[in-house]
Amino acid sequence: MMAGKKLEIAIPIFHDLTALDAIGPYEVLQLLPNAQIKFVSHKPGLLRACRGSLSLQATASFEEVPNPQVVLVPGGPGSKALMQDQVLLDWLRKVQQFLSSEPTVPVHDTTLFTTSVCTGSHLLAAAGILRGLEATTHWNTYDVLSQYGAKPVAKRVVRQGKILTAAGVSSGIDMALELAALIADETTAKVIQLLIEYDPQPPFDTGSVSKAGPELTARTIEFVKKIVPITDL
Amino acid sequence: MMAGKKLEIAIPIFHDLTALDAIGPYEVLQLLPNAQIKFVSHKPGLLRACRGSLSLQATASFEEVPNPQVVLVPGGPGSKALMQDQVLLDWLRKVQQFLSSEPTVPVHDTTLFTTSVCTGSHLLAAAGILRGLEATTHWNTYDVLSQYGAKPVAKRVVRQGKILTAAGVSSGIDMALELAALIADETTAKVIQLLIEYDPQPPFDTGSVSKAGPELTARTIEFVKKIVPITDL
Repeated sequence: MMAGKKLEIAIPIFHDLTALDAIGPYEVLQLLPNAQIKFVSHKPGLLRACRGSLSLQATASFEEVPNPQVVLVPGGPGSKALMQDQVLLDWLRKVQQFLSSEPTVPVHDTTLFTTSVCTGSHLLAAAGILRGLEATTHWNTYDVLSQYGAKPVAKRVVRQGKILTAAGVSSGIDMALELAALIADETTAKVIQLLIEYDPQPPFDTGSVSKAGPELTARTIEFVKKIVPITDL
Repeated sequence: MMAGKKLEIAIPIFHDLTALDAIGPYEVLQLLPNAQIKFVSHKPGLLRACRGSLSLQATASFEEVPNPQVVLVPGGPGSKALMQDQVLLDWLRKVQQFLSSEPTVPVHDTTLFTTSVCTGSHLLAAAGILRGLEATTHWNTYDVLSQYGAKPVAKRVVRQGKILTAAGVSSGIDMALELAALIADETTAKVIQLLIEYDPQPPFDTGSVSKAGPELTARTIEFVKKIVPITDL
């Protein structure tokens, strides 16, 4: 536990994000003792999640949160529009440099992690942070990681030192529990898991490409194509 | 599939709700073809999730959404303050009466469900909707259901006709996938499960009281007591 010390966790949000990418890990991490979560964006204000029916509030700009101890980048259709957003990418790089500059500080004192869920890792990749590293993302977008010199891995959570990337959407919950154990301790993470009653019992066994099989996977790719982008709503 | 017909899904939100209770199922249900999700509250505006760092926007009042086809009530610390809120409870009753009045309409035409996650079922119970029925809620609050004449069951998802209640927080994802299959069809639900890559691999096996064991459960109950209510932040 990090008694008495605030743990600043920044979650960048943007238009057309996938809300669960952010909120799954948020729900885990906000239970960490002393966690202070900040939803950040280019400027404070409301950001619409994909399909438009939900808005989340960013309460600070990137520049107002220059040195978070943990960064968690969610994904979603809107990540595409940010792949060349220099404000966000510079912020990610700067934050990452800050993180990298203190590799020997004990984890329980000033834990420092850069993390992502789903296509959030594309943004880390675009910022150059994943070059040469293993990473994961949503199963139908591995090629984007390759384009930026990362090595895509079909795992639910990939850890490379201080960088944790999670696969699609719901995987952020698993990642956040692992992160909670790294930040605090295993017992705290286990307590949080019980508190959010995370004893998953999905009604089907189709949560990964290997389990779903080629036919359902092909159907899912077709399904995605029919989803109306937020900009056209 | 319900081609061409809008499926109105109302998610009541309130101060001090547990965000993942709402957002887990939202992420599943918003992928249903023609789903139109409305976050509703006493009046439109921002509602702060528990611990205060996240705000979600309600875009409509209860009275503006009188006949949703699906209701999903999330829980959280804030549900307690609503147990005698006649506006919400009357709305739930009215919605429920509407639902109950058409029990023979085929599910694929006008599917009608009342659902909850976590302590959201307390509000259904307070509205009298669960009297005599089996239901579930967060594992440390079964007694509240009993007080209102429901029969608490330690299951992840409990279905009683058109009423589905889910256990704590993260269980809403499992419930929503089951609901998606009922509303649309199993293939659509399986596609959604793959799309949100819901192949859970929790790092620990402590997601239920029976798995966590008495010591960790006791520790978790102590942990909850130390969480600062939003009103004191």
